[in-house]
Amino acid sequence: MASDVERLTAQVVESFADAPDPRGRQLLSDLVRHLHHFVTSNDVTESEWEQAIDFLTRTGQISTSTRQEFVLLSDTLGVSSIVDLLTHSRTPQTTPSAVLGPFYTDGPPETAQGGDISQGVAGTPLWADILITDTDGRPVPDAVTDVWQANKDGFYDVQLPELDGPVLRGRLRTDEQGRLRFWTTLPAEYPIPDDGPVGQLLQAVERHPYRAPHLHFMISAAGHQRLVTQLFVKGGHYIDSDTVFGVKEGLIVDFTPRVGPTPDGRAVDGEWRSLQFTFRIARLADGPAH
Amino acid sequence: MASDVERLTAQVVESFADAPDPRGRQLLSDLVRHLHHFVTSNDVTESEWEQAIDFLTRTGQISTSTRQEFVLLSDTLGVSSIVDLLTHSRTPQTTPSAVLGPFYTDGPPETAQGGDISQGVAGTPLWADILITDTDGRPVPDAVTDVWQANKDGFYDVQLPELDGPVLRGRLRTDEQGRLRFWTTLPAEYPIPDDGPVGQLLQAVERHPYRAPHLHFMISAAGHQRLVTQLFVKGGHYIDSDTVFGVKEGLIVDFTPRVGPTPDGRAVDGEWRSLQFTFRIARLADGPAH
Repeated sequence: MASDVERLTAQVVESFADAPDPRGRQLLSDLVRHLHHFVTSNDVTESEWEQAIDFLTRTGQISTSTRQEFVLLSDTLGVSSIVDLLTHSRTPQTTPSAVLGPFYTDGPPETAQGGDISQGVAGTPLWADILITDTDGRPVPDAVTDVWQANKDGFYDVQLPELDGPVLRGRLRTDEQGRLRFWTTLPAEYPIPDDGPVGQLLQAVERHPYRAPHLHFMISAAGHQRLVTQLFVKGGHYIDSDTVFGVKEGLIVDFTPRVGPTPDGRAVDGEWRSLQFTFRIARLADGPAH
Repeated sequence: MASDVERLTAQVVESFADAPDPRGRQLLSDLVRHLHHFVTSNDVTESEWEQAIDFLTRTGQISTSTRQEFVLLSDTLGVSSIVDLLTHSRTPQTTPSAVLGPFYTDGPPETAQGGDISQGVAGTPLWADILITDTDGRPVPDAVTDVWQANKDGFYDVQLPELDGPVLRGRLRTDEQGRLRFWTTLPAEYPIPDDGPVGQLLQAVERHPYRAPHLHFMISAAGHQRLVTQLFVKGGHYIDSDTVFGVKEGLIVDFTPRVGPTPDGRAVDGEWRSLQFTFRIARLADGPAH
């Protein structure tokens, strides 16, 4: 029996021997070895195989241009985060990266230094004071920085049909000292779309569908590699059980509660929060271009 | 880096700790370990991950009630055959099983002993003389046996819209001696549907899409486990490179060329073929019920 399986695995691997692309040949051969080993070592039954076929089919069929259920599956099994760890390992001196997520929209509103990306929606005011440097600590001026986030109830603007235009999104540029400052609101935790096959999977294993509260950043500067990452609210809900395993130690940051005078003199009633962070991005020469 | 990955894998496995079904917990945990190891040991890039997401999505989206592209993917990667090997290993004294395939239709035409399931379609006549016994060699009478196959051009009836009703399909019953005899035609090799993602994959690795010629059998008898299997034409095309890895040594059979008188006196012009085979099926007490 063991030898039958080994012979079959060898035969399938051999079927890729003529593949002209060596990388494709390697990936497919090793995928087959892993799949066969998984099925064999777990003595998978026909009925379990049928369930897997059905699950994968439904996962493909619920996907649309605005909903990617296979990305959710990859996220909730930690595969996306593994790929992200591998990507970051190629430029270890930079700030850790994080996944883009499904809610980025290209061309967010240009926002001036000190501006407010919240467009006045309700929430705890948040003052962000960000520095962007290269891996030697030298400030990077004119770095185009897109910021986006969920509101206090855990929704992105694209999930709220009653909103007219982008909210809680902005595009800022660092000044000569590599700094950018802006107002927004404190982001909240939120569930990933859980009314499809991935949601059913999470339910079956009694896992919650929540992401820990975070702020998204995408930083692009001439001569530097793009950095896509997220900053997580220290002490926020689900920080230890983010359902897509996106939280990294180096990205958990104090969103410090404050009362009283604000840095730019803006009048705030009651509590506000303060975020300070330095992003380190790689020069193009620091690592392989992608 | 290695420890980051190990920590993440442990965290994902831990997320299934509360799953109420121990089998589901085991399968998901081990699937995650295999997936993470595959991604890490091959240093999979973001762009490769995106291609995989896109491939899986298209595979789900092309599937319909009559076309199952994930089954084709499982077949062409040898996964279906591994599951089949595991199934058969639970009743090793029986004739090896084989996959059902996508062309079975329930309730084929009842065919009398000595009848012809070919409905007169063109092809080399084939006389089949089959014995069905239990694992101790005792004949099994009244075993309901469905037979189905491709025609001389490699098409099943359901692929030929000009045909009216089932052709090259029959349901026969063994006599008191466990025997059944029928006429049909010699099956030909044929390509699996190759105009979708799986076909593109085969093309990219320069693999042909052909199945070796075979006859399908599904045998059901009271008090016995059902056997689904295939008999392959010894010397047939692609017998050594069946694209779904379905050929097993014990299922390759002589379809012996003959000329002259036939067993039942039927007049045949030119060559005909003769197939003799004994299927051994398991009593329900022989192995675990499914």
